[in-house]
Amino acid sequence: MKTLEVSLAERSYPIYIGQNLLSQPELIQKHIKSKEVLIVTNETVAPLYLEQLEAALTNYKHQAVILPDGEEFKNLDVLNQVFDKLLEARFSRQVTLIALGGGVIGDMAGFAAACYQRGVPFIQVPTTLLSQVDSSVGGKTAVNHALGKNMIGAFYQPQCVLADTNTLNTLDDRQLASGIAEVIKYGLINDAEFFEWLEHNMSALKNRVPEALAYAIERSCQDKADIVAKDETEQGVRALLNLGHTFGHAIETGMGYGNWLHGEAIATGMLMAADLSARQGWMQHADVQRIRAIFEEAGLPVIGPAEMTVEQYMALMSVDKKVQAGVIRLILLKGIGQATISDDYDVTMLQETLTQFQA
Amino acid sequence: MKTLEVSLAERSYPIYIGQNLLSQPELIQKHIKSKEVLIVTNETVAPLYLEQLEAALTNYKHQAVILPDGEEFKNLDVLNQVFDKLLEARFSRQVTLIALGGGVIGDMAGFAAACYQRGVPFIQVPTTLLSQVDSSVGGKTAVNHALGKNMIGAFYQPQCVLADTNTLNTLDDRQLASGIAEVIKYGLINDAEFFEWLEHNMSALKNRVPEALAYAIERSCQDKADIVAKDETEQGVRALLNLGHTFGHAIETGMGYGNWLHGEAIATGMLMAADLSARQGWMQHADVQRIRAIFEEAGLPVIGPAEMTVEQYMALMSVDKKVQAGVIRLILLKGIGQATISDDYDVTMLQETLTQFQA
Repeated sequence: MKTLEVSLAERSYPIYIGQNLLSQPELIQKHIKSKEVLIVTNETVAPLYLEQLEAALTNYKHQAVILPDGEEFKNLDVLNQVFDKLLEARFSRQVTLIALGGGVIGDMAGFAAACYQRGVPFIQVPTTLLSQVDSSVGGKTAVNHALGKNMIGAFYQPQCVLADTNTLNTLDDRQLASGIAEVIKYGLINDAEFFEWLEHNMSALKNRVPEALAYAIERSCQDKADIVAKDETEQGVRALLNLGHTFGHAIETGMGYGNWLHGEAIATGMLMAADLSARQGWMQHADVQRIRAIFEEAGLPVIGPAEMTVEQYMALMSVDKKVQAGVIRLILLKGIGQATISDDYDVTMLQETLTQFQA
Repeated sequence: MKTLEVSLAERSYPIYIGQNLLSQPELIQKHIKSKEVLIVTNETVAPLYLEQLEAALTNYKHQAVILPDGEEFKNLDVLNQVFDKLLEARFSRQVTLIALGGGVIGDMAGFAAACYQRGVPFIQVPTTLLSQVDSSVGGKTAVNHALGKNMIGAFYQPQCVLADTNTLNTLDDRQLASGIAEVIKYGLINDAEFFEWLEHNMSALKNRVPEALAYAIERSCQDKADIVAKDETEQGVRALLNLGHTFGHAIETGMGYGNWLHGEAIATGMLMAADLSARQGWMQHADVQRIRAIFEEAGLPVIGPAEMTVEQYMALMSVDKKVQAGVIRLILLKGIGQATISDDYDVTMLQETLTQFQA
């Protein structure tokens, strides 16, 4: 097992990464400060891992709330089911919430914890690669609104994160690839050496070799933690983590939540960012090809959905959180491992990129 | 005009107290960091003060969302109307929310600001005495859940508070008295001298003498700010501010939100706390009489609702946020100006108090 400490002053916490972590009760117990636990999970994950987690909580008052599975259920109405359960079972302000599931469950359980009685502790047990490398670090929690993704939320840090690589064995290939997209993102942002490692180890990741997965998770979390530590509430450099996300959120919203997986949408989005960066003369076309090649090897889409028009992209991108004073700020690339925040790009070239990626 | 600085490290902010503040645009403008403003108000307050506030915002992109008036609308569904408006009008993460109204509007606008895009700035313009002395200080924001009051919320500080005493002229007498209940609370908690001042100046407050109101608001805010500065997220001493609230919330919930005003419910609740304290031998019966007398002079209820049974009180009080490990922690009195947190009271005496206060 590897332990990574996320340093955020009084809100620091450890991430545990390795095999069989769910069968070590003492790991999770030492981060529960009271005798009350509510597990938040979904219909897909509950049959797989709920019993194992509950076995670690026999000495606690514990219950579970099982939500429907999918990004389309990440909204205020479904969130209210968590509050219903907390209040019906009279959980006090000392309750610890445990998120058992992927990114949607982590986002919702974390936001519920941020809001219940104005804040109770929570623990993340991410069961997908995407959530192990993304939601584990950074404290972003949220639900979607019909008019925009992650528009209602809070910055809220967990007590600890348990990334058990065993749980990745039950992921389907498409979900695994979606997580790999987020892993590649860290290489592209500020870790060219990691990007090269990924180019050489993609088949080990796709074959779920535990050591390769653990290394990729640890390095991704470390890269993300370094950035978050510099900018907890996203006033500046943290925005780099949104590489591919302004394009990707437009695809997710435009296609309806859940039809494109998050990693699929941001993979295409990152390639769009690279394409625009190359058009601007900021990076080599050969590097764009390396990015396209690694996504293809990972089994990720390298073209946008046929249905979406340039006008639709522009409309959806302009409601993104990164818009300032009407200008869409984008995360672009000055090369592999050199992401940059920019509102200084040519809008015509942006439209050329969007046209290029229509299937 | 008086200015009171609430000291909370990097989240400190000023409270401006005085007459005609709404007609001084520069006061509010210097606390708006962007060019985007959404005013959150309600159907009662909008016809009275919205135009005046909007006149101070002519140079800004500004809109207003007008919510229904009343505690019964302080819920997630109505909160979502604020998010709808923010997203339909494409307000960015730089938007400032302004709460124009009483405590319900302040709580909802503040919570919306805490959550929109994971946090945008907000300004409080409280238009009731209760909200000027209560919601102005402390950063508590929340909505109600069908099973409990203020169960979903956040600690979130405003950029500034504008307490314009002119707005109190449009309050009806019952609303004014409700605010006076909260003012008296500060005397009871830790300011016996202020309690005496209130005993001598109650008719000036009821007659809305501006100097008396401004003094009572300033002193209440100062008393509250002193406590909050010691304990921003209510781990300890801040709980004293809940004097009368565990009983009072039970009345509000039991009677249905909006039927008893908040100040009315907590006035009765404070008297119940005093009665129980006297039964315990912790304070003089003569002091309980002084408390009863000041509430009567203020026009506040000194007896509970006829409909509520002891069992109902006990059930409702046990879901309160102050419950720890199954024991209802109460704020009781060791005398006027000496509130104390206690779970060391005789439950039989608590039931005697509850019986005593059945109408």
